Amino acid sequence: MSDSASSRLAAYYEELRQHHLGPLWNSIGSMMTPEPSPRAQPHLWRWVDVYRYVMEAGELVTPDRGAERRVVFFSNPGFAGLEPWGWGALTNTLYAGVQLLRPGEKAPAHRHNQSAIRFILQGTGAYTAVEGERIDMEPGDFLITPAGLWHDHVHVGSEDMLWLDCLDIPMLYQLGVMFFENYPEYNHPITHPNGYTTRRYSASGLRPIQDHDRTYAPQAVFKWHKTQEVLDQLTQLDPDPYDGFAVEYINPATGQAAGITIGAMMQKLVSGQHTKAHRHAHSAIYHVFRGDGATIINGVRFVWHTGDTFVIPNWAWHEHVNTGSNDAYLFSTNDGPVMERLGLERCEAHPENTQRVEREFDG
Amino acid sequence: MSDSASSRLAAYYEELRQHHLGPLWNSIGSMMTPEPSPRAQPHLWRWVDVYRYVMEAGELVTPDRGAERRVVFFSNPGFAGLEPWGWGALTNTLYAGVQLLRPGEKAPAHRHNQSAIRFILQGTGAYTAVEGERIDMEPGDFLITPAGLWHDHVHVGSEDMLWLDCLDIPMLYQLGVMFFENYPEYNHPITHPNGYTTRRYSASGLRPIQDHDRTYAPQAVFKWHKTQEVLDQLTQLDPDPYDGFAVEYINPATGQAAGITIGAMMQKLVSGQHTKAHRHAHSAIYHVFRGDGATIINGVRFVWHTGDTFVIPNWAWHEHVNTGSNDAYLFSTNDGPVMERLGLERCEAHPENTQRVEREFDG
Amino acid sequence: MSDSASSRLAAYYEELRQHHLGPLWNSIGSMMTPEPSPRAQPHLWRWVDVYRYVMEAGELVTPDRGAERRVVFFSNPGFAGLEPWGWGALTNTLYAGVQLLRPGEKAPAHRHNQSAIRFILQGTGAYTAVEGERIDMEPGDFLITPAGLWHDHVHVGSEDMLWLDCLDIPMLYQLGVMFFENYPEYNHPITHPNGYTTRRYSASGLRPIQDHDRTYAPQAVFKWHKTQEVLDQLTQLDPDPYDGFAVEYINPATGQAAGITIGAMMQKLVSGQHTKAHRHAHSAIYHVFRGDGATIINGVRFVWHTGDTFVIPNWAWHEHVNTGSNDAYLFSTNDGPVMERLGLERCEAHPENTQRVEREFDG
Amino acid sequence: MSDSASSRLAAYYEELRQHHLGPLWNSIGSMMTPEPSPRAQPHLWRWVDVYRYVMEAGELVTPDRGAERRVVFFSNPGFAGLEPWGWGALTNTLYAGVQLLRPGEKAPAHRHNQSAIRFILQGTGAYTAVEGERIDMEPGDFLITPAGLWHDHVHVGSEDMLWLDCLDIPMLYQLGVMFFENYPEYNHPITHPNGYTTRRYSASGLRPIQDHDRTYAPQAVFKWHKTQEVLDQLTQLDPDPYDGFAVEYINPATGQAAGITIGAMMQKLVSGQHTKAHRHAHSAIYHVFRGDGATIINGVRFVWHTGDTFVIPNWAWHEHVNTGSNDAYLFSTNDGPVMERLGLERCEAHPENTQRVEREFDG
Repeated sequence: MSDSASSRLAAYYEELRQHHLGPLWNSIGSMMTPEPSPRAQPHLWRWVDVYRYVMEAGELVTPDRGAERRVVFFSNPGFAGLEPWGWGALTNTLYAGVQLLRPGEKAPAHRHNQSAIRFILQGTGAYTAVEGERIDMEPGDFLITPAGLWHDHVHVGSEDMLWLDCLDIPMLYQLGVMFFENYPEYNHPITHPNGYTTRRYSASGLRPIQDHDRTYAPQAVFKWHKTQEVLDQLTQLDPDPYDGFAVEYINPATGQAAGITIGAMMQKLVSGQHTKAHRHAHSAIYHVFRGDGATIINGVRFVWHTGDTFVIPNWAWHEHVNTGSNDAYLFSTNDGPVMERLGLERCEAHPENTQRVEREFDG
Repeated sequence: MSDSASSRLAAYYEELRQHHLGPLWNSIGSMMTPEPSPRAQPHLWRWVDVYRYVMEAGELVTPDRGAERRVVFFSNPGFAGLEPWGWGALTNTLYAGVQLLRPGEKAPAHRHNQSAIRFILQGTGAYTAVEGERIDMEPGDFLITPAGLWHDHVHVGSEDMLWLDCLDIPMLYQLGVMFFENYPEYNHPITHPNGYTTRRYSASGLRPIQDHDRTYAPQAVFKWHKTQEVLDQLTQLDPDPYDGFAVEYINPATGQAAGITIGAMMQKLVSGQHTKAHRHAHSAIYHVFRGDGATIINGVRFVWHTGDTFVIPNWAWHEHVNTGSNDAYLFSTNDGPVMERLGLERCEAHPENTQRVEREFDG
Repeated sequence: MSDSASSRLAAYYEELRQHHLGPLWNSIGSMMTPEPSPRAQPHLWRWVDVYRYVMEAGELVTPDRGAERRVVFFSNPGFAGLEPWGWGALTNTLYAGVQLLRPGEKAPAHRHNQSAIRFILQGTGAYTAVEGERIDMEPGDFLITPAGLWHDHVHVGSEDMLWLDCLDIPMLYQLGVMFFENYPEYNHPITHPNGYTTRRYSASGLRPIQDHDRTYAPQAVFKWHKTQEVLDQLTQLDPDPYDGFAVEYINPATGQAAGITIGAMMQKLVSGQHTKAHRHAHSAIYHVFRGDGATIINGVRFVWHTGDTFVIPNWAWHEHVNTGSNDAYLFSTNDGPVMERLGLERCEAHPENTQRVEREFDG
Repeated sequence: MSDSASSRLAAYYEELRQHHLGPLWNSIGSMMTPEPSPRAQPHLWRWVDVYRYVMEAGELVTPDRGAERRVVFFSNPGFAGLEPWGWGALTNTLYAGVQLLRPGEKAPAHRHNQSAIRFILQGTGAYTAVEGERIDMEPGDFLITPAGLWHDHVHVGSEDMLWLDCLDIPMLYQLGVMFFENYPEYNHPITHPNGYTTRRYSASGLRPIQDHDRTYAPQAVFKWHKTQEVLDQLTQLDPDPYDGFAVEYINPATGQAAGITIGAMMQKLVSGQHTKAHRHAHSAIYHVFRGDGATIINGVRFVWHTGDTFVIPNWAWHEHVNTGSNDAYLFSTNDGPVMERLGLERCEAHPENTQRVEREFDG
């Protein structure tokens, strides 16, 4: 290109920019990539770090109408510098954090059009209340808070209580459609008897007749002891080649993801079990509920132990191995339901079943 | 009308008939009734009678490729004289009968586009095999045989075994679309490990990851001890005003009726419990699994005891009462899913909540 | 079998019958046939006959609150002797008849849970009113009357007007769920401006913004001149091998059958065109709008001319040929939507593409 | 707070940041806003500017395998500084630009999982080919390119041709799931006859029988002369209070948005017509096909003339007025289908029907 042509082009680009216009021909490569190139990166957080900062938050802040919740959230390095999701996105669509509620504390009632799920990590004695139902929480329990329902948290016990929250905040932020509303009082009233869900949904395939036409998710909690029993039963059958012995948490009234726009799964890997590698369009957040092992993501080996959290971005090859001597339990949550509703899901098996490890993740 | 006009009209009607034509104006009243007027009538069969004839069939016939199944079926008096459904329809759409399999017997493998459900009445030691899954049967268990799947029965135990079969034979007969096919051998092979379903679907809301895209009903059996536990749990909450403490059997992957076109429900009524009256477009077949009581259907009181079978036709008012001193368990099956799929379901509460009893049913 | 055994068996069967019970083992063959064996038979009615009797009805009866409608309906010989559908069923699920409205006449307003479609045969000057919309009728027009909507007919012109009605009466009769209600006055009021549908739905793929959330079929009429234009356009492309140049009438808001539970199609066959044979689970009623030709149904050749009506029962092989020198137009209506909603549809191509003609239909 | 507490807190926040963690309690206000607060701002681009730069691009760049397309795209000022969607997002989810194809030029074939729609602005003689169908383009035509289909552009005429492209690039970028693939040759082959769509979909409610089970959008083009006729017909009926005389472009086989994840609408406003104000969760891009008027967005008046483009972000109040003496035609495209599929759509009427204008937009 001649100097004058080159200079005219530079001027042209600058004029475009001033008119809030842009040239597709030199940006299409970054706008439309051959394969997914999500900002979210594979990453792993050590429980020892997360736990230290969450407990310190216990000293620094108290949940109330201003602070709402005492949560330390995960911030994917790939979003660094991008506000506000630079702070709050763990994958391109999902937010997750660890919440601490101390004996005697309460977190105020609100509702929002984001969907939320919770996975209980430590402690007992606290409950979440969702639209009038008190849901007592124990380690390993999975809870849902469907979009639009009032909810708050109350601690009536004596142990610090920690759980993992996951919401579709980054997606709704990016879609530009967030609604959030405080309840007029601090807590909203409990209107259902204790144990409402567990009494109504205690076996597979049996739905209380009153829920025949129910539209939102009727099962508020999925108890750990049930999940563990199911996984023990599954262990006597063939595992899934990619996910091991694994169950999805679903709405028993519809078969859709319990979390509506947020999928969730619990996987059990027995000692030595090594799954085959695959990749899928959706992204996932993993939390090691129990065990020791490693996950190889796009050729990088992420060693994990109980309490660690790690990310599998969209379309990343991944396989898991339990290197410990006990069963490992991996909880994970994902945006698969969004991909399915928008016709974007796809899945691919690794041609060689297992990846070559190129390096170890070292933080 | 003059004699000649009247005579011309008679001749006209006869000519129409000969040309396979008909006059709407004098038949519309019977063709389009203001409210449902099903051929099926309310009726009740005593277990003592049914049992006697089923056991006598045990002497008279053996299931094999010609007889297929040893079943005594219920024949609604409203269809008397109509072949073949005069024999085989219990409601306008549903067939039901009691099947006997004796120790050492087998019933051959076939498949059909009718959907089937089974409810186990007595005995142990036999199993149904559906598409390679062996399903051991115990009293109170509910099993499904989805349309199009190979299935047969085998008795490896030592007690006579009886169960209730229900299929949508009359509906498919009337729709004109029945397909039925014998398996090339007597039995089809078992390909799943024992206890496949119970290991895979042992808790509500947890779906094995391999079933994420499953299209047909993945839960083959709903065990009685689970059902009873769920009903005991529900008994601690408010009952449904019309159905008492009740659960539907559903496909846990979709929330639709487990029997696809055939709905099913188990109701528990505690001693003295008397439900409110209502009516719905769909029809239902009831089998008294345990207990003593009565159901008032369109003003007629049907007293029932363990083992009795009775019919609630479409749009019939009905209410139930447990007159015994123990819990009563009513199993029922219905064509609600068909009504819903065709946009025909409707439901109405009785304006006075309870009916005036005009007479007792006496057989 | 010994005499005493045989005699005991006869007594047993008689006892069963008296107890409203039946033996499956000797009726399963008629209850569950290997392939569909619908009562409806292939049959053809000559227009000359139908027209004569419809016009004679014009002398014998007048539509009013008692007679409701002046319709001569088709009565499939396969249902002879069965009341009331022995008179009123053309296929296992569908009723059809020819209605006559004379200048100055009106037919009263009613509504019902049956779905209705109409196809206009002769005359002008009358309209059907559906839920407040006046729909002027011309030969070749296709109209729908969705279940639950008030409708009546009014003739403000000067020519006898004839049309074909088709309803799912036999199906609803058999399902046992008919509702029918008279409007409190003779006619119901017109609330929409003239030409409402044709102004709102005049091109494919363009939906008035007010219908974004509309639930029932918004297009009340499909005009013949539009249908003919579309078929002329299609004639420049490849025909469907089994149906020729053919369009379905659909609800433009959902893509489902315009008649909800009743499918409908218009086929054009050019001179000499002979389609391949196939069969499908659903049944169909054909009316020859224009032309001369023949349809071979299960090896029997049915020759047809303008105005004739014929039946293709479920799972019957069929192929069409235009033996005239002009284009032939075949209107047909079917229960395909029911089969699809209940998961019962299937379709098969004839292995030799064309059937061997075994005989001619001769009435 | 004491100095030491404050200093500890600052250190704590910095440690969190280094560990890729964040404190929810001081970011929840920006992450979960009471109402939508999209980055996209209301903005308007003058046609005189856009046209000048597009035509200059005609000198500077030629579509080929490297440049792919000669498009000047709109870049919402709200995304300034954010790469890459700082350049390419017009609303939070949608990209749009003006493409120029000159006589004799071709743009190469590719496919991607983004959905695309096109609205033709000027010229004749070029066609888009989609999965083997040649679609000739004229001003006012609306075209779709469903995700996953091969497509390219070819100019065989003699006039410069300009059209508006809209894709869901920003949404897929943010979701992290983009796939893009080049066809192995420059163009992909035409396999359908000319005028394929227009011959197959020329009237509302009539679907070629071959498309009974078609899964993707079968109508490739919606011709302007048809759209104008429909709007002229609608003008004889009552307008929609918020959108005037308006139609959505839909998939005639399903009633869903023609563009799958991208909705589109054409509105006609007669001289002097002023709509009521409302707001909805979804965002929209407007292009003034013809006319002069103004749109008030969140109290700011945007005056528009033929060819101008403007943005209505999520949940922004808006109302339109035609201030010219001729009919105005507003084309618009939106992310409503995404909001509906994810359960996020909501709509609200302005309590006073019209907004108070606070200022004029001046670029």
